[in-house]
Amino acid sequence: MCTTGGILFAERGLQVDTRYYLTYNRIHKTIRRLAGRILESGFDPDVIVAIGSGGFIPGRIIRTYIDRPILTVGLSYYRKNNKPQEIPKKIQWIDEVENKLSGKKVLLVDEVDDTRVTLEYCLKELLRHGPAEIAVAVLHNKRKAKRGIIPQEISRYFVGEELEDRWICYPWDAKDIDEQERLAREMGQIQKK
Amino acid sequence: MCTTGGILFAERGLQVDTRYYLTYNRIHKTIRRLAGRILESGFDPDVIVAIGSGGFIPGRIIRTYIDRPILTVGLSYYRKNNKPQEIPKKIQWIDEVENKLSGKKVLLVDEVDDTRVTLEYCLKELLRHGPAEIAVAVLHNKRKAKRGIIPQEISRYFVGEELEDRWICYPWDAKDIDEQERLAREMGQIQKK
Repeated sequence: MCTTGGILFAERGLQVDTRYYLTYNRIHKTIRRLAGRILESGFDPDVIVAIGSGGFIPGRIIRTYIDRPILTVGLSYYRKNNKPQEIPKKIQWIDEVENKLSGKKVLLVDEVDDTRVTLEYCLKELLRHGPAEIAVAVLHNKRKAKRGIIPQEISRYFVGEELEDRWICYPWDAKDIDEQERLAREMGQIQKK
Repeated sequence: MCTTGGILFAERGLQVDTRYYLTYNRIHKTIRRLAGRILESGFDPDVIVAIGSGGFIPGRIIRTYIDRPILTVGLSYYRKNNKPQEIPKKIQWIDEVENKLSGKKVLLVDEVDDTRVTLEYCLKELLRHGPAEIAVAVLHNKRKAKRGIIPQEISRYFVGEELEDRWICYPWDAKDIDEQERLAREMGQIQKK
């Protein structure tokens, strides 16, 4: 599934695909740079919290560069009164959460900061458990007006890559990974970094 | 980190690297076939449980083909009395686990079935919570004598790919993903499937 926010432009009667098709290797490199910036900032987390399910893969790759235990929280979304607003609902939380987060430096990892609603929800919930600090690391941030806000307690926010407000097609969502690679090449999204 | 079990053969005075270097795309395709076999078997899970942190990426990719909520359990390992036996220890479990697993069909996902100790531990713990059925899906099984056993309650065990008892270098563990790709090509591990 590509994340929402994309548009298809009609141009000369043809539909132009403006989505970002990303490869695993490009994302791996983005996360390597992201982890480097986190470490350079002096932030030394005790624990990684990955927001599921989008944050599972970025969180696991980050651990290759910042080797800390990974906890996860799982969220799903529902629409209230059929309105197009996504309301997060916990599908899994951290057991014995106070023990595991109290006084700890937490690196909260997600796939994309889109509307920011998920991040706001997670940050507020996690802050209730008395962590020493929470820093946010998102693989991608979409440049757009946000509906959610980052609570003022959060002073560190790291982004792997800034993207325009278009659909992002992640490789893990691809039914056909060869087709994903082909589209990524066509879109010029494979960067030789 | 490459999983244990590998050996380096001395051959004509040179060390030959017998490790499996795997690419993300190869793994994505392996999981596509694995998911296909699970669905063809008639097993229709209610929930996926990914064993962390190795199962996070396989679990997330499986969800692209079998779209169910993912719960996670996190394990770490310690050595008892300095013996080379890995004893699993929970670092995260499922909150309200009885509610979430009782009467449910569970697809338990992990990266590799190596010694089988992790699987045995997880299966026994999860069986205590009264699921209707648990099926196991591992990305890789190593052909070797196992220290752990699959409890007799488990009748479905799915493997993405059978491998010899050698080190497996997963792409998510690669510090340098270009080097991983190069080594995978050299080892002839990139399959055009």
